[in-house]
Amino acid sequence: MAKQKKTPRPKAETPKGFRDYFGAQVTERAEMLRKIAAVYHRYGFDALESSAVETVEALGKFLPDVDRPNEGVFAWQEDDDDGKGDWLALRYDLTAPLARVYAQHRNDLPTPYRRYAMGPVWRNEKPGPGRYRQFYQCDADTVGSASMAADAEICAMLADCLEEVGIPRGDYVVRVNNRKVLNGVLEVMGLAGDAERSAAVMRTIDKFDKVGEAGVRELLGKGRLDASGAYIDGVGLSDEQIKRVIGYVTAKEDTASYLETPNEYDVSGKVSTELRLQSEYLRSDKLPDSVGENRIEGQFALLNHLHDLVEGSEEGKKGLDELAEIADLLSAQGYGPDRIVIDPSVVRGLGYYTGPVYEAELTFDILDDKGRKRQFGSVAGGGRYDDLVKRFTGQAVPATGISIGVDRLLAALREKGRIGGTAQGPVVVTVMDRARMADYQAMVGELRQAGIRAEVYLGNPKNFGNQMKYADRRGSPVAIIAGEDEFARDVVQVKDLILGAQIAQTATLEEWKDRPSQVEVPRGELIAKVREILAVHDRDTGAGAP
Amino acid sequence: MAKQKKTPRPKAETPKGFRDYFGAQVTERAEMLRKIAAVYHRYGFDALESSAVETVEALGKFLPDVDRPNEGVFAWQEDDDDGKGDWLALRYDLTAPLARVYAQHRNDLPTPYRRYAMGPVWRNEKPGPGRYRQFYQCDADTVGSASMAADAEICAMLADCLEEVGIPRGDYVVRVNNRKVLNGVLEVMGLAGDAERSAAVMRTIDKFDKVGEAGVRELLGKGRLDASGAYIDGVGLSDEQIKRVIGYVTAKEDTASYLETPNEYDVSGKVSTELRLQSEYLRSDKLPDSVGENRIEGQFALLNHLHDLVEGSEEGKKGLDELAEIADLLSAQGYGPDRIVIDPSVVRGLGYYTGPVYEAELTFDILDDKGRKRQFGSVAGGGRYDDLVKRFTGQAVPATGISIGVDRLLAALREKGRIGGTAQGPVVVTVMDRARMADYQAMVGELRQAGIRAEVYLGNPKNFGNQMKYADRRGSPVAIIAGEDEFARDVVQVKDLILGAQIAQTATLEEWKDRPSQVEVPRGELIAKVREILAVHDRDTGAGAP
Repeated sequence: MAKQKKTPRPKAETPKGFRDYFGAQVTERAEMLRKIAAVYHRYGFDALESSAVETVEALGKFLPDVDRPNEGVFAWQEDDDDGKGDWLALRYDLTAPLARVYAQHRNDLPTPYRRYAMGPVWRNEKPGPGRYRQFYQCDADTVGSASMAADAEICAMLADCLEEVGIPRGDYVVRVNNRKVLNGVLEVMGLAGDAERSAAVMRTIDKFDKVGEAGVRELLGKGRLDASGAYIDGVGLSDEQIKRVIGYVTAKEDTASYLETPNEYDVSGKVSTELRLQSEYLRSDKLPDSVGENRIEGQFALLNHLHDLVEGSEEGKKGLDELAEIADLLSAQGYGPDRIVIDPSVVRGLGYYTGPVYEAELTFDILDDKGRKRQFGSVAGGGRYDDLVKRFTGQAVPATGISIGVDRLLAALREKGRIGGTAQGPVVVTVMDRARMADYQAMVGELRQAGIRAEVYLGNPKNFGNQMKYADRRGSPVAIIAGEDEFARDVVQVKDLILGAQIAQTATLEEWKDRPSQVEVPRGELIAKVREILAVHDRDTGAGAP
Repeated sequence: MAKQKKTPRPKAETPKGFRDYFGAQVTERAEMLRKIAAVYHRYGFDALESSAVETVEALGKFLPDVDRPNEGVFAWQEDDDDGKGDWLALRYDLTAPLARVYAQHRNDLPTPYRRYAMGPVWRNEKPGPGRYRQFYQCDADTVGSASMAADAEICAMLADCLEEVGIPRGDYVVRVNNRKVLNGVLEVMGLAGDAERSAAVMRTIDKFDKVGEAGVRELLGKGRLDASGAYIDGVGLSDEQIKRVIGYVTAKEDTASYLETPNEYDVSGKVSTELRLQSEYLRSDKLPDSVGENRIEGQFALLNHLHDLVEGSEEGKKGLDELAEIADLLSAQGYGPDRIVIDPSVVRGLGYYTGPVYEAELTFDILDDKGRKRQFGSVAGGGRYDDLVKRFTGQAVPATGISIGVDRLLAALREKGRIGGTAQGPVVVTVMDRARMADYQAMVGELRQAGIRAEVYLGNPKNFGNQMKYADRRGSPVAIIAGEDEFARDVVQVKDLILGAQIAQTATLEEWKDRPSQVEVPRGELIAKVREILAVHDRDTGAGAP
């Protein structure tokens, strides 16, 4: 017999940047996806699921991570006999695959095509603390409509989704901007037609939150050293050009102060009126007579700034008109700035946007790792991408949509204590006599038949204490105990573990004496007794059966 | 300005072996996963979701596809600065990742650890018609229990799952075998310790359905030409050895005739008794006195054959004892051969199984592409894999579990017409006057507020016929129509599209005259009227609201 070679043991580790999700982390996400899908469905969107794997050429290169391997995607070459297999990659979002699906199946799909999709996406980002390379998105897009009504609908739906999953009005805001306005600014700066530098400026603006004003200034000019000590080349703009961009990005701060008081807004008529006034203003470049309150002057100052910045650019003016149309449509449905605002600071990192862009931000404070207050930030984003299908077909197919970052939303709800309770464990049937396994299985079978979550202890039954520790770790409400004596008398012991824990915690036993934590019942009454105990605890906690 | 290079258009195609799922295909799968998860939960299993990406070393090489690139997985090397990044791969099942998760988190998990998981897995198989390289699995496993009760429970749960998703008793059977019995046969053949040839024999037995007896004979001996004309090397067994294996695999046919009559079985006492008799027989090697009916003699003949085949092998005898124990535990819970049978023909392709193996098969006939009747076949499988965690930790951790092939199950239900109705489309608000978009949006907003699936037409509204064609394609039950005249009179037209279609199909208009397909109602009564029409159709079809 050949001597077996000893291979070293594999490491039991998730790959860098990936993680595992347990129990309620999984079921809470499933529940959130279900709720969002229900809103999308009510808006007329149909489900689509494409595969995780696409060809690299179909996905295109639109991620902002130009300095990462394969520009930020996980990619590999298909093996085939002549070594010329396709390059395949994991999808980095759900939008690029939609463009491929629509181009491929367009003759079988309705036009416009409203679809929703949900699932994980993968980004080959540099791993770092709290940064994951697989995360869930939940998207809705309308393909084949150039109407701003499609964009307005998407924004309204996004607000509805956030409220549906438990973010109350006032704790979020959907911001809307238009890439054409940004392009107008670039045009006025003399960068029209310089696609490469324009894209670099956009990416730099998008980094404002991370690197600050000084950082943006350096990145637009000669470059800067990043945190890791690597030198990042600058875009090479002139001081005059840089000043314009900085003027644009710092206009943001006015918006921030404006947004600090969203809760004061009246949800009904007044707010809608305000959005309508914004829209009039965007169209006419004149402050409407009815605007006088300090509160909203800041916002109008910002819009005023915008008009100046795109002066002389047709595309910039078109962008402002589109924003006005979206504001009109939203106000007609009663969506005001307590939910949705026009905000020129929104960029969105992806390279394929061509018109309106949206971003949903949670406005409440959370504490960061170092105990400092900070805003929770963006949980969803999207926009119009009229050229993504054209890549395949040569024909222009307008499209617009939104992507909700489900994992960030879940983190926010956990942060606010709105989810994250531990789920109730199963009833545990303990094993006193190994030879009686068939009888224990019969008990557990009856409990499950009755719709009660239950299991028999399957570890080594020798140490009974371990069985009770197991039941505790599982969060079991009830344990069933039956040994030789119980089988002989055709009874079982039913132990109320929740009550038991309460008794153990309380100094005075008086109040519990009417509710003993362990009772003996005839075998035939097992189900009824367990039901009775579970019902009491459901009443105590106000929780329904799982 | 630099001249832009023209790049060729990307092809709008799914990569070879992948596909897209639309509408009901997606929601029906989600519904099935939800139902199976509910059964797993009732049995005490907790949710786990690991990432799609694992290191190649953590996954190990257990797929039967030894002749495919990377042995059947999609793999790539991480880029890092010195070119020595980890090799990563897409998971090919949910079991290998579970072993990694358990080894990594074992100090934080209960023991035994019952978990369920669901999601896509990927296999780098040779693409072919109807063969997909991404498919869904829905698994449940118990880690840390060596008890046959864990295996019995998994088999019972599998039967419950199949009935829960709509496969009636009698249309499926769960077959149970034990790898130790197979190992016993190999030992008696003189292959003990020859891991490579043993594995090759197992893989060959597993191909019986595909290549038939003659094919297996060739593959065990000198080899054969496969369908594509490639020569497949044989295992190189002697004629005597081949005869033994053939005797083993053809014993299957007795089982097949035995299984043709599962519907005749009595669900209650008699069936359980029969399984208990099988168990006694497995233990004693003597036909119990109470067995006399022709119907089950075939099955006992098969078991008899087994005793002969493993004669002299300790491991083989241990395997038969374990099968007897599983049969006992199942019969105690009332699971008889109408649901679960002991069947020595089950192998399971994966290399990590060490004890009991299970397979669920649908027993009804379907028609294949050429209109020939054939059995639907396997939809789930699993088994005990006691060494998979040990790979990481060095310590033995027993484990057992099942994987349900959700996509095949869905195909079966579609085949039988039990799912696959078209979902009801949204109410469509048509656009007669583009300038009135805000008013149409307000209508659709009200409908959605009322919980009614609705959308406004977002395509080019010029051609009204296209709008009605769109509504038809979407399966809309109702269209709303309002133009200049209607807005002036504050009314809307509500068109019942289902009734309209019925009228169009029927020659005699008489019966419809009391139910006109289009009515005018005051704008304020829009919601009430739509509700009324939807209620009538729900009553007609017996369907509830979506």
